[in-house]
Amino acid sequence: MDFYFDFVSPYGYLAAMKIEALAEKHGRSIVWHPLLLGVIFKSTGAQPLVNYPLKGDYARHDMARTARIHGLPFQFPSNFPIATQAAARATYYVQDQLGSVAAARFVKAVYGAYFGDDVHIGEPDNVLKIAGDCGLDAEAVAQAISTDEYKNRLKTEIEQAMARGVFGSPFVIVEGKDGTESFWGFDHFYQIEHFLQHGRI
Amino acid sequence: MDFYFDFVSPYGYLAAMKIEALAEKHGRSIVWHPLLLGVIFKSTGAQPLVNYPLKGDYARHDMARTARIHGLPFQFPSNFPIATQAAARATYYVQDQLGSVAAARFVKAVYGAYFGDDVHIGEPDNVLKIAGDCGLDAEAVAQAISTDEYKNRLKTEIEQAMARGVFGSPFVIVEGKDGTESFWGFDHFYQIEHFLQHGRI
Repeated sequence: MDFYFDFVSPYGYLAAMKIEALAEKHGRSIVWHPLLLGVIFKSTGAQPLVNYPLKGDYARHDMARTARIHGLPFQFPSNFPIATQAAARATYYVQDQLGSVAAARFVKAVYGAYFGDDVHIGEPDNVLKIAGDCGLDAEAVAQAISTDEYKNRLKTEIEQAMARGVFGSPFVIVEGKDGTESFWGFDHFYQIEHFLQHGRI
Repeated sequence: MDFYFDFVSPYGYLAAMKIEALAEKHGRSIVWHPLLLGVIFKSTGAQPLVNYPLKGDYARHDMARTARIHGLPFQFPSNFPIATQAAARATYYVQDQLGSVAAARFVKAVYGAYFGDDVHIGEPDNVLKIAGDCGLDAEAVAQAISTDEYKNRLKTEIEQAMARGVFGSPFVIVEGKDGTESFWGFDHFYQIEHFLQHGRI
């Protein structure tokens, strides 16, 4: 299952914490695709949820409530929104080097730092510290995320995601017998489960 | 439970078809509040879902898929969006005269005509025909919806809804022991159920 997200996305955080259980239950693995929503929103004319009048207030309340219902820690970050290039590039590097499970561990650690412990994950140093805490080679990660290879990788991933119809976070594309299905939003996980169990209806 | 919606809203349709069962299960009744999203969006700067690039295509696919999963007929209307004043005013009149259950029947008939049978419910004549089919006095409804009383009623309802934080459709406000909780979207029905069962968490 292709899991598209931005590290700045609160519902992306909730989804990232829950998608492994869903994937495992149905014998699927996850390919992690961190993106920059700012780039996508520039193209689609959308805005961050919390920027809209009324909807923004509701969203802040709902994020915390949804986290509580699903038993996840949540506090709205002091620094929001932030640029998430460093964390995104690092994720691709970790996944390339060590695979999906190592990437999952790193993604959850970064997300947990941002939405659980209010760590400013826009700062590359904080991302590297989290990498080190995950048992990764922080120096190698530091080097990778400053290369053109991983800068371009992130750009290409964003382009490819938009070409597949991705416009928000979380966004999951699942392979099925009769082609792929796309699902937007943490609230749509029940439909992913339905598709994994029964196929397209 | 206060149920806010626009007759033009596809997810509002799905929610309207399912909310009675949820309310009855928990001994609640429903107050129907049809609104005009166009007026609200003018104030909040939002746009209809289907107008956004990428998101619009996804939404059209998802509406039909979600309807299928929940066992409801759905076809995207030939006329969309449309002005829903006549249906909205008629709903308030029916609810004032005959109560919530009669209003529910009328709301579901109008929604079913629009999203099930592709009837242009922006035409007052079609709304009145549906009223007649529901066993209502179509002439009395026709008279009511052209009065200043019901024109103003709809305006006031929209103002009051926005004052309560309503910005989209469907939107449900539920009374609880420790105050009210607001829920946006058909996908959030599981959270309404959770709140009705356990109260605020």
